[in-house]
Amino acid sequence: MRPSGRAADEMRAITIETGFTKHAEGSCLISFGETRVLCTASVEEKVPPFLRGKGSGWVTGEYSMLPRATHTRGSREAAKGKQSGRTQEIQRLIGRSLRAVTDLEKLGERQITLDCDVLQADGGTRTASISGAWVALRLAVNKLMEAGAIKDDPLTAKIAAISCGIYQGTPVLDLDYIEDSNADADANFVLIEGGQIAEVQATAEGATYDEEGLLRLLRLARIGADRIFAAQDKATK
Amino acid sequence: MRPSGRAADEMRAITIETGFTKHAEGSCLISFGETRVLCTASVEEKVPPFLRGKGSGWVTGEYSMLPRATHTRGSREAAKGKQSGRTQEIQRLIGRSLRAVTDLEKLGERQITLDCDVLQADGGTRTASISGAWVALRLAVNKLMEAGAIKDDPLTAKIAAISCGIYQGTPVLDLDYIEDSNADADANFVLIEGGQIAEVQATAEGATYDEEGLLRLLRLARIGADRIFAAQDKATK
Amino acid sequence: MRPSGRAADEMRAITIETGFTKHAEGSCLISFGETRVLCTASVEEKVPPFLRGKGSGWVTGEYSMLPRATHTRGSREAAKGKQSGRTQEIQRLIGRSLRAVTDLEKLGERQITLDCDVLQADGGTRTASISGAWVALRLAVNKLMEAGAIKDDPLTAKIAAISCGIYQGTPVLDLDYIEDSNADADANFVLIEGGQIAEVQATAEGATYDEEGLLRLLRLARIGADRIFAAQDKATK
Amino acid sequence: MRPSGRAADEMRAITIETGFTKHAEGSCLISFGETRVLCTASVEEKVPPFLRGKGSGWVTGEYSMLPRATHTRGSREAAKGKQSGRTQEIQRLIGRSLRAVTDLEKLGERQITLDCDVLQADGGTRTASISGAWVALRLAVNKLMEAGAIKDDPLTAKIAAISCGIYQGTPVLDLDYIEDSNADADANFVLIEGGQIAEVQATAEGATYDEEGLLRLLRLARIGADRIFAAQDKATK
Amino acid sequence: MRPSGRAADEMRAITIETGFTKHAEGSCLISFGETRVLCTASVEEKVPPFLRGKGSGWVTGEYSMLPRATHTRGSREAAKGKQSGRTQEIQRLIGRSLRAVTDLEKLGERQITLDCDVLQADGGTRTASISGAWVALRLAVNKLMEAGAIKDDPLTAKIAAISCGIYQGTPVLDLDYIEDSNADADANFVLIEGGQIAEVQATAEGATYDEEGLLRLLRLARIGADRIFAAQDKATK
Amino acid sequence: MRPSGRAADEMRAITIETGFTKHAEGSCLISFGETRVLCTASVEEKVPPFLRGKGSGWVTGEYSMLPRATHTRGSREAAKGKQSGRTQEIQRLIGRSLRAVTDLEKLGERQITLDCDVLQADGGTRTASISGAWVALRLAVNKLMEAGAIKDDPLTAKIAAISCGIYQGTPVLDLDYIEDSNADADANFVLIEGGQIAEVQATAEGATYDEEGLLRLLRLARIGADRIFAAQDKATK
Repeated sequence: MRPSGRAADEMRAITIETGFTKHAEGSCLISFGETRVLCTASVEEKVPPFLRGKGSGWVTGEYSMLPRATHTRGSREAAKGKQSGRTQEIQRLIGRSLRAVTDLEKLGERQITLDCDVLQADGGTRTASISGAWVALRLAVNKLMEAGAIKDDPLTAKIAAISCGIYQGTPVLDLDYIEDSNADADANFVLIEGGQIAEVQATAEGATYDEEGLLRLLRLARIGADRIFAAQDKATK
Repeated sequence: MRPSGRAADEMRAITIETGFTKHAEGSCLISFGETRVLCTASVEEKVPPFLRGKGSGWVTGEYSMLPRATHTRGSREAAKGKQSGRTQEIQRLIGRSLRAVTDLEKLGERQITLDCDVLQADGGTRTASISGAWVALRLAVNKLMEAGAIKDDPLTAKIAAISCGIYQGTPVLDLDYIEDSNADADANFVLIEGGQIAEVQATAEGATYDEEGLLRLLRLARIGADRIFAAQDKATK
Repeated sequence: MRPSGRAADEMRAITIETGFTKHAEGSCLISFGETRVLCTASVEEKVPPFLRGKGSGWVTGEYSMLPRATHTRGSREAAKGKQSGRTQEIQRLIGRSLRAVTDLEKLGERQITLDCDVLQADGGTRTASISGAWVALRLAVNKLMEAGAIKDDPLTAKIAAISCGIYQGTPVLDLDYIEDSNADADANFVLIEGGQIAEVQATAEGATYDEEGLLRLLRLARIGADRIFAAQDKATK
Repeated sequence: MRPSGRAADEMRAITIETGFTKHAEGSCLISFGETRVLCTASVEEKVPPFLRGKGSGWVTGEYSMLPRATHTRGSREAAKGKQSGRTQEIQRLIGRSLRAVTDLEKLGERQITLDCDVLQADGGTRTASISGAWVALRLAVNKLMEAGAIKDDPLTAKIAAISCGIYQGTPVLDLDYIEDSNADADANFVLIEGGQIAEVQATAEGATYDEEGLLRLLRLARIGADRIFAAQDKATK
Repeated sequence: MRPSGRAADEMRAITIETGFTKHAEGSCLISFGETRVLCTASVEEKVPPFLRGKGSGWVTGEYSMLPRATHTRGSREAAKGKQSGRTQEIQRLIGRSLRAVTDLEKLGERQITLDCDVLQADGGTRTASISGAWVALRLAVNKLMEAGAIKDDPLTAKIAAISCGIYQGTPVLDLDYIEDSNADADANFVLIEGGQIAEVQATAEGATYDEEGLLRLLRLARIGADRIFAAQDKATK
Repeated sequence: MRPSGRAADEMRAITIETGFTKHAEGSCLISFGETRVLCTASVEEKVPPFLRGKGSGWVTGEYSMLPRATHTRGSREAAKGKQSGRTQEIQRLIGRSLRAVTDLEKLGERQITLDCDVLQADGGTRTASISGAWVALRLAVNKLMEAGAIKDDPLTAKIAAISCGIYQGTPVLDLDYIEDSNADADANFVLIEGGQIAEVQATAEGATYDEEGLLRLLRLARIGADRIFAAQDKATK
């Protein structure tokens, strides 16, 4: 029995409010239950040094938690003077995931930065970030296409991320904070519309798992991803 | 004529949405027009080293802008590894202002941190931060009093902050971004309910001003502060 | 009664020793009583990136206290690896104040940096810094004009800074350390020769103040500024 | 056809030279082909703050590349003043992996730090690090048991890490640098002796993969892990 | 022929003005010609962690150049966020030298920090720093002895530092900036009253030197040290 | 009697294993007894900004200890975010020493970086570093000459570094860790083949020394340097 009363393969409510901030070329506030992340896409007409003059664009991600997004207040990384290993790991994952569905040449020599700022955390902040970042990216690319700056759509597919884990012996979908803190294994999947896998990060905590366990988690992840793709569709239509 | 069409002594719409995040002991999303700041109050049962064992509490503030709160994306301070001089100046102002209306001994040996995170910026982010931080502080103190942790109310009055400036020769209230970028003089007032002044920071940019100019700005500030006090009242009733 | 026995509107002795160091284009050691600040003006034939090619110069300030300028030794900021919020706030104020009396276009595409290093502190270090920095700036600009590098004098007026405060209920001029540590309100004024105000920073500590209090402090500040203008005149003649 | 001429399921030569440095409680130089990592285990009779007084020990990892371990010289992280996101990600993985096979209570209130310093890099440095770190940990624990400081063996199983990837359409085992730079997908598996999985990190680069692809990589990983377990056995007998 | 017209074994004028700042337990402004360093000694009733409870005191040094002590302005180390290798090397040398003439047990469990801040530089800043730091230390120790905090004098002898070098083929004493920039070899000697050597740092730049050259520089150094000892005597009598 | 049983003028065994890593243009693992340092020379076709376009090359050094090179584990400098004063002092010495035997114009506009990473420490790590760095530099220059990138050999002589000290009243050669920790005086000499001195750094610890003592240490150093020159010869033939 899950603390929230959800079925093992039941996701939390997904809501996506687009246009949450007005300056960004694309933005949304995505919620997976009580987890809420503000995702913005910022277009800049320049690329990192290693890409200059190569006719290719770049997509990158940044991630942060507001100090009181969590149950107890965390220190502000800007005040500590550095980003934690966890933050950097998540930032790299966001960028890599979004690039997996972007044709960088079609994007042209420009960079889109996806900022994912967690306003409230209740488990699954990195997966909500990736899922929401895609919406912000889609909106920003739409704007570039409408303005004629880009001709062919550089986005090749939708992408969604979702966490699964083994909680009290049962594989469950979309862990909230209580489940996440007590899970025996914790996996994040980044899945592409159509069935392909972009990334798997599965970690045993306490207990380990076997091949069959991994596959069960993957199957749950597919169920969750379909729910997210539907919400993304609705938000960007 | 102001770009927004407002009268010289007309504030932008003020809205305060309390309980915007669920973990903080007090929280609100305050808007001065398009400027939106998430203010949270976090209570911790400890005080900074210099106050330990002295029977007094502490109130402090932190401030940050999300990277894309602004027209063009700014770098994340956590990524740069340090907070700018501007950020630190604002943080010190927030803490000082809130302490001006708090009886720290009545608060007891605990610290309340006011985090002000700007989700969207259109001028006046520091004044919205202080005004919203008071609401978050009020809500957190109410909770402590309801729980019996504090007996006598440590908050001695409401406090509000507002910017004024000389725009194209005319003193105006509550500058938005366009006015702020072009003002001849820029002043921030932190005012206490009942008429007292907690802080004046008045800076000439381009043109300088005289005593009469300073007093005119102060009178506009009083008009704005009354509007903010009313909104704070409504939000915390 | 003031600890020093001074009258409420009496400044400490002001001395300005020009040419205190030989490498700087302009330099002086300014004293407000026991407070002593070494101010140097360094001319560099380059401007910050945001001004390149725009035909305008720049004036900026830096500030530091020697570790044992104070009663008890403070840590060296270079050893701690960062400048405090207070240091940055003062640096920004020094630069802003000097720019208020400089016509940056007449200065031409060059930067003048005013370094204010406090050798001994007894209250009022930031106001002595600004007042002395003007002398160093004046001397450096004179040298540029004598060398024919600048044609029209870019300095539009003298500028002076002075602190005032409410000490034991009485508004007093030019607080020393003992007064500063116990003042109910503390205000720094940056005033331009001729009556204009460049900056007001007035902060309530403990008690707050009203409009009348603010004006009294401003009047005291004018008395102090006239004394400083006279000393600046004498030093740069 | 692999650049090295190896079969798809063929690992590079594994060598483990124990006692490579004399001060560490456990040490080895592990090679996967041309990749060489010096792994040391350092025992300290203290635990991190969050574990103090709880009767549990801690195992953690640190990782670094010598500047010229690679084809072209990289900057020294100590000189840059911070560890990269990649370094931190690997360090977290090393610690997590070793803790998956350590009973921290049996270890007692002490910390073992596994330092993995890459002397020469040719792909697979993180997997060689984890595999070698286990050997260093085993040797250090043996020494603690011989000295009577620990009674029951806290190590529950051997653990090995290995990379697999899809290179020119074919799933291959143990990627060297040339393959790694050109792989379509790249996966790191941390496997426990006996069949359990501790960690999967599978990333699509360029092309994505499906469930069948993931399973094929996992099967290759098992082949590699068995080779590593054998080498670990031989080294610690 | 030396640029200054001095004889090969002729030092620049040495002046030592004690009590230059009033807060420090000991202070002086020492000049070697145009090189001027403010040296202060600060007594703190605590020792570094590695000495706690061992009945021994500590003497340490810190060093900095004001940004415009030099011909062209240098960046402030506090602004750059770290001290240069040169600064750290000099700081270590100052502390080591002063400890060479201090009986740390007689000092008792307290620390004396010698801050050496270069107000104006013209070669030999580190040697003037050490020589002046001894005066500040002597004055601070005198004060401790007068107050009865220390019984037996912990200072065992005077110590002086002086630079020598080979300039245009000739060994010369006390290099000024022009000589220092063009010397073939540069040596700093820290000498103890009575003939003992505390430290030699001799570096070939351009040309190298032999044993005979080293001895010649040492003999020059003895001449300079005697001049410094005399000035120290006069200042502390 | 020395702890190791060596005669006063007896060096530890010197071994130099060239080609220890394959990517560097020159590399060796040098041992002075149990002290082992990996030295690599990396050639880059660029020079530091201050040399650009001047037809001159540059040689520089970097130094680090692996965390567990020592008896007890030291913190990683990359994790602490800065290099210690000791590290920077040694790095500067390595670069200066190697430049003393390099004709930078003959090197052409390229930089060679000598990385010295201490794998195991038992006293004398800086002297082993310099001695080994010369071998790596020699090998890298040979490669450049064979490739025709350099015509005339820029290396003017061999260079060796060795420590000497006064241990229990006796001057001894090549201190190991036990001797180094207890020496009364400690000196590092950098000597050039043929008799010239590049650098002397002699420090009294506890006891001081006189001119005669300095000369005795220098004579011992010459004995050690001859041994090192022979080993360098053998390694690079």
